Amino acid sequence: MSYEIEVTLAESRKAKPNVNELAFGTCFTDHMFMMDYTPETGWHHPRIVPYAPISLDPAAVVFHYGQAVFEGMKAYRTKEDKILLFRPEKNMERLNLSNERLSIPPVNETFLVEAIKKLVSIEKEWVPADEGTSLYIRPFIIATEPYLGVRPARTYTFIVILSPVGAYYAEGINPVSIYVENNYVRAVKGGTGHTKTSGNYAASFKAQEEAQKHGCAQVLWLDGVEKAYIEEVGSMNVFFKVNGEVWTPALNGSILAGVTRDSVIQLLKEWNIPVKEKRISIEELYAAYTDGTLEEAFGTGTAAVISPIGSLKWNDKNLVINGGESGSLSMKIYDTICGIQTGEKEDPFGWTVEAE
Amino acid sequence: MSYEIEVTLAESRKAKPNVNELAFGTCFTDHMFMMDYTPETGWHHPRIVPYAPISLDPAAVVFHYGQAVFEGMKAYRTKEDKILLFRPEKNMERLNLSNERLSIPPVNETFLVEAIKKLVSIEKEWVPADEGTSLYIRPFIIATEPYLGVRPARTYTFIVILSPVGAYYAEGINPVSIYVENNYVRAVKGGTGHTKTSGNYAASFKAQEEAQKHGCAQVLWLDGVEKAYIEEVGSMNVFFKVNGEVWTPALNGSILAGVTRDSVIQLLKEWNIPVKEKRISIEELYAAYTDGTLEEAFGTGTAAVISPIGSLKWNDKNLVINGGESGSLSMKIYDTICGIQTGEKEDPFGWTVEAE
Ligand SMILES: Cc1ncc(COP(=O)(O)O)c(C=O)c1O
Ligand SMILES: Cc1ncc(COP(=O)(O)O)c(C=O)c1O
Repeated sequence: MSYEIEVTLAESRKAKPNVNELAFGTCFTDHMFMMDYTPETGWHHPRIVPYAPISLDPAAVVFHYGQAVFEGMKAYRTKEDKILLFRPEKNMERLNLSNERLSIPPVNETFLVEAIKKLVSIEKEWVPADEGTSLYIRPFIIATEPYLGVRPARTYTFIVILSPVGAYYAEGINPVSIYVENNYVRAVKGGTGHTKTSGNYAASFKAQEEAQKHGCAQVLWLDGVEKAYIEEVGSMNVFFKVNGEVWTPALNGSILAGVTRDSVIQLLKEWNIPVKEKRISIEELYAAYTDGTLEEAFGTGTAAVISPIGSLKWNDKNLVINGGESGSLSMKIYDTICGIQTGEKEDPFGWTVEAE
Repeated sequence: MSYEIEVTLAESRKAKPNVNELAFGTCFTDHMFMMDYTPETGWHHPRIVPYAPISLDPAAVVFHYGQAVFEGMKAYRTKEDKILLFRPEKNMERLNLSNERLSIPPVNETFLVEAIKKLVSIEKEWVPADEGTSLYIRPFIIATEPYLGVRPARTYTFIVILSPVGAYYAEGINPVSIYVENNYVRAVKGGTGHTKTSGNYAASFKAQEEAQKHGCAQVLWLDGVEKAYIEEVGSMNVFFKVNGEVWTPALNGSILAGVTRDSVIQLLKEWNIPVKEKRISIEELYAAYTDGTLEEAFGTGTAAVISPIGSLKWNDKNLVINGGESGSLSMKIYDTICGIQTGEKEDPFGWTVEAE
């Protein structure tokens, strides 16, 4: 395919909102990136165009069979007004992993990192400057062929949209209560839990409602087979500090390999804090809680970076962790990763990439 | 909501194709039914409009989080040129079951049966007449709100499109080979397997590819927990005749409750053939095969009605059933259901409904 990105600029620009008054994911920038796939030409016609509705045949495969994958990452503005991306190549690598599982043709990862950098550069003014704010980047692929047979589509569109987002912790970091879900299952080995395919998320809404009914912010997912082993928290990976060690569920085929998860593991290793990727049963965690060795718990993901867990509701038990306060290791990780993302701290791992 | 359906007819009509030369699900009629949902007005503005592309914000929830459900049913032309639907109320009931699991607001089932009848009446000329042909009806709901947070959308569109289809068995009924899938999982209890949500189908494409690599037409799905119990075949329910009895997997929370499945069970009861809904392990089936009591096997679904299974590939074994021929009970069921659907046979169950 031609790697020339055609650019059509919008005739007028939208007013920039006050991001700290915005709900997440409701406001989009002036332009988007698109490219199309056909079996004859492969991925082609990469272009940056004004943000606008897309028109699809009502029989498009994405509507009927959910053949769709996505990614989520962020751009940050440094004090020097540079725009940094955080490990974008990891997201493109994971996109291809999702593509493979969902029978979507692979994309050129290197080219797409360049395309995203170009789009973000054009939308540079949309990257907010206040502490904790960022520009959320949402690449996604949808199956567009109008066809009702149950088989992969022949045509696809890849799109990147951008949304400025306010500080996740505008009111300070408050640890969340988490509801241990015994009923609904997010994913199972042999399924699609290790990918970012759209259907995984609609399937999780009911459990989220359940958590809220129990006064909790998020769900803790157990494995779908034995309902005994910890997998994730909401749309985040999860970590526990137990007796000076840090544990996180091993990637087992039903857990998403989070970019933040990987970054946290690398940091801990760098700091010589023992970190174990292992199978963690809820019973084992409860035992650590009762013998007083469960020191901290936190979720990890692009949106919040680190989300300290203040308590776990498990059946009739309520496990209050670290007195319901954010743990010191959680906070140190949070500060370090945010510092690297915004260029305020040194980046020994080479995680950040400049957009221009 | 107002139950008045606004009708806008197309200015010109498409040429009707020769359905027997058409691939399934590639040709659509002149009109479609639509209605919208907002939290303020509920489902509203039911309308029949010319078939046309739909325009959605690139941030629409359906693209990102797969919040979408669908149904599939058929209309048949009788010798007397009446148009019959087959148990449409069952499909609308199942649609609401899917809605409930996917956090989509419920629809008015009775009204929608009427709306579908009206749409099919308007498209009456599109219902083909040749033996085995029909008009496929695809109702579906998509989440339309532009929003990237992980929660149910606030707005939806319900759409019905129609597609004329040729005879499934244009070349006579040929039993299919089925590949027993040990790796990929379709569904697990606590997930969405008992619903018709879009994501279930994209997740199944890889296994289908696997089946084809092994020279098989479809996959036999085992349960996601023990990988030992039979669930479904491709996008069909599955039945086995063993020693004069008929077995089908019991609805266990991960199996779709097929309308054809239910009809087959009712027929068998009417005929005083013992039918058991039970947990069936692949080992138990293999034991029946080796002791010579596995007499017939067939899939059931709207598309094929009955799809006789000629052989099962299970690891290194190849179980040839009934000498690879369609069984006599399979054929009797097929003839009876098709006869009822097309008005050629008596309908003691009151399954068919006239469109006009
Ligand atoms: C299911 C799930 N788990 C974990 C994560 C965290 O991944 P990352 O750190 O790459 O954002 C995400 C989202 O991004 C997710 O959707
Ligand atoms: C997964 C699955 N199982 C079974 C069926 C059969 O259901 P029905 O007989 O209602 O067509 C279908 C499709 O329609 C299906 O998608």
